[in-house]
Amino acid sequence: MKNYKLIISYDGSRYYGWEHQPNTEMTIQGKLESVLSKMLDNPAEVIGAGRTDAGVHAKGMVANCHMETKMNEQEILAYMNRYLPEDICVRELRICSDRFHARYNATGKTYCYTLYVGELKPVFNRKYVYVPEKQPDIDRMREAAGYLVGEHDFASFCGNPKMKKSTVREIYDINIERSGSYINMTYHGSGFLQYMIRILTGTLLEVGTGKRSPDSIPALIEEKNRSSAGFTVPPQGLCLIKVDYSNNTKEKE
Amino acid sequence: MKNYKLIISYDGSRYYGWEHQPNTEMTIQGKLESVLSKMLDNPAEVIGAGRTDAGVHAKGMVANCHMETKMNEQEILAYMNRYLPEDICVRELRICSDRFHARYNATGKTYCYTLYVGELKPVFNRKYVYVPEKQPDIDRMREAAGYLVGEHDFASFCGNPKMKKSTVREIYDINIERSGSYINMTYHGSGFLQYMIRILTGTLLEVGTGKRSPDSIPALIEEKNRSSAGFTVPPQGLCLIKVDYSNNTKEKE
Repeated sequence: MKNYKLIISYDGSRYYGWEHQPNTEMTIQGKLESVLSKMLDNPAEVIGAGRTDAGVHAKGMVANCHMETKMNEQEILAYMNRYLPEDICVRELRICSDRFHARYNATGKTYCYTLYVGELKPVFNRKYVYVPEKQPDIDRMREAAGYLVGEHDFASFCGNPKMKKSTVREIYDINIERSGSYINMTYHGSGFLQYMIRILTGTLLEVGTGKRSPDSIPALIEEKNRSSAGFTVPPQGLCLIKVDYSNNTKEKE
Repeated sequence: MKNYKLIISYDGSRYYGWEHQPNTEMTIQGKLESVLSKMLDNPAEVIGAGRTDAGVHAKGMVANCHMETKMNEQEILAYMNRYLPEDICVRELRICSDRFHARYNATGKTYCYTLYVGELKPVFNRKYVYVPEKQPDIDRMREAAGYLVGEHDFASFCGNPKMKKSTVREIYDINIERSGSYINMTYHGSGFLQYMIRILTGTLLEVGTGKRSPDSIPALIEEKNRSSAGFTVPPQGLCLIKVDYSNNTKEKE
């Protein structure tokens, strides 16, 4: 039995998110396990670094899977990409340490939320962007984002009202850049609560369009109350870019 | 009654092509006319520069429409983009000469066919590219394309076996460029027969992968026989980029 590390990209548009759901086969985890189970002729369990929500995309999701097979890495990769749907691609696959666990060992994640602010409708990119009603002021958003960076209790930005575990997380960096008709909001942090990035983005958009002031953010964090924060932007603008692992848990090369 | 010139972009994935079809509302022309007829409270006829096939995209389709309305150009544009589906966008709309006819006055068209030749599956661009089975040799394709440029009878590259009108067309230029994992094949010509660009592309791909030699093209043109040419590549890689009009027929500014 060997342990394999996978890097996966997918267009989440058609799926009910990463994680298994009852009554549907349309999850990323489900599709991956279905192909591997057929390949191995045995049930396979794919452990993801995190759960992306319905409609959220990924360019660098990391997963691991323990498998017993005579196929080599290249053969497994080719088999998977051949039988996976055209909107899911295994970018890399290699043998890693038996102890590597894609979720427990993750030390950070980078997500990007993309706004489209061009004059015309984004005909060809419409499934990967959100079009805000008003053009936001990037400088105001950056100023507000500055207050979010660091270790905080992000209860105000947690979409799960029944969350019992700690809602403390650390945001290492929020980078907001305009590129042509797009605004890319890149969040790098230790981990994120459910809907957290979409609520952060909605809140920053409200700052950017004048509904909130940048310096209202510290009090908002302090309140620890979801209803004080901004709206949840829709999932299609969100993409998981990268998952970090520290050197201690790094897979064997 | 004024005449309006429109420049339209659309993602053709969901549509049965530009032109009206019996028994379906899913055509580009149908969607445009439906929105305009509602706006005018009168039937509207939209004349396109050409007909794109089912699944083919456009970034610069040109059309004209005679309309009686008190709305100004900006208002019409805003109304159309509000009520059109999210995969159709009117990029420009302005009053033009009464005599301007988008189809009869067109003097040239530019199409681009996009191949994806990267190692990984094109998860996010899969609806806008074709993935050939083998990597083609661009130099061989360019050499073959040289024989196609000029005025020729393109009967060998016509998808309509019942075509009674002339199959003579002029290709001004074929440009083949690699850009990262993509090969863009840009065709500029006086006009194109049904499926012509897709058959030209299939034939050039067969040259690029060694199935034909570049210098077999002149004889192939001479044969005037569709079955001698290459396969028809699928529609999703094709996009209408631009339609030319000569200065004589240019719309009023």
